[in-house]
Amino acid sequence: MLQNVPLKDDITESYNRIVRYIHRTPIFTSETIDYISGASMHFKAENLQKVGAFKYRGATNAILSLPKEKLVHGVCTHSSGNHAQALALAAKNMGVKSYIVMPSNSPQVKKNAVAGYGGIIIECEPTLAARESTLADVVKEHQAAFIHPYDNYDVIAGQGSCAFEIIQELGHPDYIVVPVGGGGLLSGTLLAAHYFSPQTKIIAAEPEGASDAWKTFATGVFHPSVNPTTIADGLLTSLGEYTWPIIRQYVSDIITVSDEDIIAAMRLVWERMKLVIEPSAAVSLAAVLHKKQIFANKRVVAIFTGGNVDLSRLPF
Amino acid sequence: MLQNVPLKDDITESYNRIVRYIHRTPIFTSETIDYISGASMHFKAENLQKVGAFKYRGATNAILSLPKEKLVHGVCTHSSGNHAQALALAAKNMGVKSYIVMPSNSPQVKKNAVAGYGGIIIECEPTLAARESTLADVVKEHQAAFIHPYDNYDVIAGQGSCAFEIIQELGHPDYIVVPVGGGGLLSGTLLAAHYFSPQTKIIAAEPEGASDAWKTFATGVFHPSVNPTTIADGLLTSLGEYTWPIIRQYVSDIITVSDEDIIAAMRLVWERMKLVIEPSAAVSLAAVLHKKQIFANKRVVAIFTGGNVDLSRLPF
Repeated sequence: MLQNVPLKDDITESYNRIVRYIHRTPIFTSETIDYISGASMHFKAENLQKVGAFKYRGATNAILSLPKEKLVHGVCTHSSGNHAQALALAAKNMGVKSYIVMPSNSPQVKKNAVAGYGGIIIECEPTLAARESTLADVVKEHQAAFIHPYDNYDVIAGQGSCAFEIIQELGHPDYIVVPVGGGGLLSGTLLAAHYFSPQTKIIAAEPEGASDAWKTFATGVFHPSVNPTTIADGLLTSLGEYTWPIIRQYVSDIITVSDEDIIAAMRLVWERMKLVIEPSAAVSLAAVLHKKQIFANKRVVAIFTGGNVDLSRLPF
Repeated sequence: MLQNVPLKDDITESYNRIVRYIHRTPIFTSETIDYISGASMHFKAENLQKVGAFKYRGATNAILSLPKEKLVHGVCTHSSGNHAQALALAAKNMGVKSYIVMPSNSPQVKKNAVAGYGGIIIECEPTLAARESTLADVVKEHQAAFIHPYDNYDVIAGQGSCAFEIIQELGHPDYIVVPVGGGGLLSGTLLAAHYFSPQTKIIAAEPEGASDAWKTFATGVFHPSVNPTTIADGLLTSLGEYTWPIIRQYVSDIITVSDEDIIAAMRLVWERMKLVIEPSAAVSLAAVLHKKQIFANKRVVAIFTGGNVDLSRLPF
């Protein structure tokens, strides 16, 4: 048994804490994709979550879990992705300040999104060292609470609310397939399934060009993500010291897929399901279609993790 | 009072007849679009209907309303758009043959879609005269029943099921905004609202480049659609002899919008709502944003009529 990880009650309490603030996202089916996959597919549409990504769940839970005397100083993070927007909007909705450290070369559209959600942007040089030192300055100057994008148990428990809703609605599916980057959603899903639907197998899906989790899982030795190259730009990061032990303990398998398969799955969803999903979200369906024999005739849930994509730069 | 149009019971019976076959499409909201519009907006997502368009409702009702001795000969229509796919799939699902007359220059992707739904394609020269004479040949040869895309009371009553669901779910909104081409969805919506929510005003939305309905409404003299040019390729046709009297009697207003506004509304929905809608569907939201003063602080439903768009040829 793992020590210190969120317990069954932590998952339930996190869900109850955030339920008024998050969207209960719909679960869609598609006759066409059932036909193509041979499985009974369900798609949890976190692209329809606030800020267009599941990250809003974890950010909200992390903020609501802070003691009030900490909240007056605000929260902070370094991110150029969905976590930045999620933390900015969650903070705004709680009446809390947020400081977002972003690399100076972040796309203007992402800076605009964070600013639009009320985040205070602090730019830094585009290196990890600069991001971390700038964040340390923000913490020191403002006493803001750092909310890590995934390596934080409140974030992990918050992300677990997604699988909690799936199990509430669908009972005990055979599989839940989850894209893995840093592993926040994956570990939250693993814990929720472990406590509420242990018969459900959780499979992670990862781009071939960023397959550090797969290497780590296959060898049992931690592999960081080094120079990842994939269109799935939400899945570039390494597993964390909180997420990896949960993944090691509970994940059934990790499937890697090519960028070509990711783009094909993304296009299939846009064309047939009429849903805008980002490449990182399509990785879950790509994994099912890549390993059809595993999922044939099973009840399978794939999580569509987000829908934030630059329409001027589509891969098709 | 209009003569011969579908009655209150016809709308209810049509709904009950097709409810097992259609998707009950979700109604979405968007804080961002409420903020931009100043209205309390609801979006009926018929892009998530079977075949990706509301047309499946009317086609299903028309087929189920035919006497059994007619059905053995199959159904037919001429169309290169959503009605072709809708009739083909509805027929397939009822175990009925469908003959679809399509102009020889129809995009291959549309022919593939009709064939994929089991429709038997008969190609003809790309003129209205050729379409009509080829269709007449099909009717003569096979005794197939012609299902007009909109000028057919069973089709109109079937399209009315969309507003019937809106009223069931939302009660009595102040406005429902409906794109108008031939007027099938518009007249079905007008009848459903007249019978079940007479306090709801129905407003039609039309592209400037195909504003025959607006001209007809404004002058009271029927104007056919002549050389329409708009990106909203589902709204090119003229009003029909069954649809125009219903529209004249019950519609509150018709708002025209530019292609630029249509594309901007479409992009807004893709980016913020993560829904793939086609240009013709975006016309409803474009009309609300073009005439904000009408809708300010009102409860407004815009119908997203479909999501069939060629991803290789996006306007942004």
